[in-house]
Formats: sequence, C-alpha cells, structure tokens
Amino acid sequence: MTSATTRDSEVTVRPGPGRPRDEALDEQIIEVTLALIDADEEVTVSRIVSRSGISKAALYRRWPSLTTLIAAALDFGRVVPPTIPTDGDLREAVLAAMFGVQTEGADYSELRLRQRIRLVMADRTLQKAYWASHVARRRAPMESALRVGIERGILRADLDVEACFDAMAGAAYYQTVVRGDSFDNPETMMRLHAAFEVLWRGMLT
Amino acid sequence: MTSATTRDSEVTVRPGPGRPRDEALDEQIIEVTLALIDADEEVTVSRIVSRSGISKAALYRRWPSLTTLIAAALDFGRVVPPTIPTDGDLREAVLAAMFGVQTEGADYSELRLRQRIRLVMADRTLQKAYWASHVARRRAPMESALRVGIERGILRADLDVEACFDAMAGAAYYQTVVRGDSFDNPETMMRLHAAFEVLWRGMLT
Repeated sequence: MTSATTRDSEVTVRPGPGRPRDEALDEQIIEVTLALIDADEEVTVSRIVSRSGISKAALYRRWPSLTTLIAAALDFGRVVPPTIPTDGDLREAVLAAMFGVQTEGADYSELRLRQRIRLVMADRTLQKAYWASHVARRRAPMESALRVGIERGILRADLDVEACFDAMAGAAYYQTVVRGDSFDNPETMMRLHAAFEVLWRGMLT
Repeated sequence: MTSATTRDSEVTVRPGPGRPRDEALDEQIIEVTLALIDADEEVTVSRIVSRSGISKAALYRRWPSLTTLIAAALDFGRVVPPTIPTDGDLREAVLAAMFGVQTEGADYSELRLRQRIRLVMADRTLQKAYWASHVARRRAPMESALRVGIERGILRADLDVEACFDAMAGAAYYQTVVRGDSFDNPETMMRLHAAFEVLWRGMLT
C-alpha cells in the first residue's frame, strides 16, 4: 500500500477517516476488472476506464500494463501464506499449510479459480506474469519449510523442493482441472491426503 | 469403427478403396468442430452442420449431444495407452508409460491441451463428460499396473491407486496449468522425473 498523498491527484475527494484513498481506488479498479471477467466480457483498458471513472493515466500509474492488472485482479482475495513453523512436527505443519483451514479470503472462490485457469490457458503472457508476480511468491513459505526440513535431516538431502511442491499442488489442481471436483467434496480431500502421505514418505530420509 | 454399410444413407458418395465411409465422416465432423475451437468461435450444432454439409440427424446419430461431440473432438489424436507390462521392472514400465516417448498422436499438441482445459474450465458438464468418456478410460492401464504392483508386494497394500495417479498426472498438469511450461523444455521434464522419484519411493513397501 502506497501513501495516499503521493498519487491520485486527479481525484478531488479528500481521504476520509476510512481506509487510505489509494487502496480504495486500487480496489475499485480491481472490482471493475473482476466484474468484466465474471461477465465473460473481454477485459480492455477502455472498458475499465469507462466503468470505473478512473483515468487511463491513473490506471497505468498503478499497473504498468493491462496484463499485470488482470493478474492482480485474478489474485484478489488470495494471500501469501505466513511462514510455516519448522521447529515442531514438520509433517503436521506442511500438511496444515497445504490442505488445512483455508487461508484464502472469502472472495477467492472455486469459480474464480476456474476463471483464472481459463484466462491463463488463453494467454501465456498473462500466465507468466501471474506466475512471477503471484504464484512464485506464494510458494516461497512452503519451499523454505521444506529446505529447513532438509537441513534438519528430516527430508532427503537430494530432494528437488520445487518438484515436491509441484506434485503436492499438482494433485490439488488435478481435482479442479481434470476431475472437475470441488474441495468441499470429502472424497476429493481424502484423495489429496492420500497423495500427500505418499509424497511425504518419499520425501523422508 | 462401425460398418460403412449401416449408416450414412444420406451420403451418396460410395465408399472408395480408402478408409470406410463412416470413419471419414466422423473425422470430417470432428475436424469442423476443432476448426471452430481453434478459431475461438462458439461451437454450435448449426455451425457444424453448415460447415460440414452433414445433416443434423447424421450428427446426432453419431453423438447423442453437442457436449459428447466436443468431448470427442477435444480428445482427437489421443489414444488409450496400451497395457503396461508388469512382469519385469515395474518402476521402469510405469515411468515409461507416464513420461516416456509420447504415445499421443501428432495431432494432439500443447495448444490443443490448453484449449481443452480452457473449454472445460468454462463448462463443467463438458468436463464431466470428457472425464467419463476419455480420461477415466485412459487412466485404466496405469491403475491396473499399480494394482498388480500391490499384488506382487512391490507397492504398499494401503495405497490409494487413484490418488497416486492424480499426483503423478497432477505434477504434469501443474507445468501446463500453473507454470505455463512446455514438455519439450528439459527443465520441465527433470522436475517431473524428480517428482516421480519421490512418489515412487513413497509408494514402495
């Protein structure tokens, strides 16, 4: 979040006692972008400008390109997970971080996940932008925890941490992308737990 | 493949010395459907009828619904893999079946894979149809081989064979769906091999 005084000179409303003006404007643009995505309309700068009432210049000050804006919109409601505790039971901590209580905001629904995949399948530039700006960052806490596991001698020294993450997350993506199953289906979660157990055993020294 | 004499009475061309008339007609419909998908046009029965010159009745005799036709088109060029030999080195046989020399036809490109995912993300009915008619069948040889591995005492008796498949295939889907990487990238294949090694170790007794 940037300071409310450094940008948005074109907005005449003074920041009220609520959240800073800049953040509210950012969200307004994101919401208009998501509304276009939800309506299955093509997302263009002119549409965002006309529906949000925000100038093109203000939009480009915030996001260097339409692609980075769409990537940010697709990630709305998602968070970079917190550091995974590595001093206790590592298996439990990794399992909880991977499949435990949802850390996603309520705004991040299965529908949005499916929309995101649909859009990035049609646009590899968007996909790579989304990967770099969002997914890669979100993977970091898990990859760090696995590396600590290697240092602590719990996990194999020759482990490819990125490949392990891909298999864990990939099993989850498979449910959405191939099976078309939801994560609130108990059978789906049982399969993911079973897959995790196999992977974890294979990761141990 | 059905007999060339039982259907297509509306087609006046007699079957030539080449492939049977029915198969050629099936392919013609599939090709028109794929052309619409490739052009990012909405796939409708009337468009297929007008572009292929085949009657609506003939189309519905072949596929009970537009959804099943699209599912068949999306699978064009893919094959149900052959039985996996389980009397020799099971690990090598499973690895070869999973990530070995491509058994897909040349018609099944990465582009088509991305299109398929895009379409099924937008249409869960199509996704479930595609799962039942194509994916579930293609998984069978691998799941059978893993079950033989359990019987032979190579793999753990408590293994959830479907979950193991999901993790193996899921790691591969992750490359396409999340990373946006291609399978002809050596780094991608190294990651998939590393993921397989971890999974296989976790599957062993």
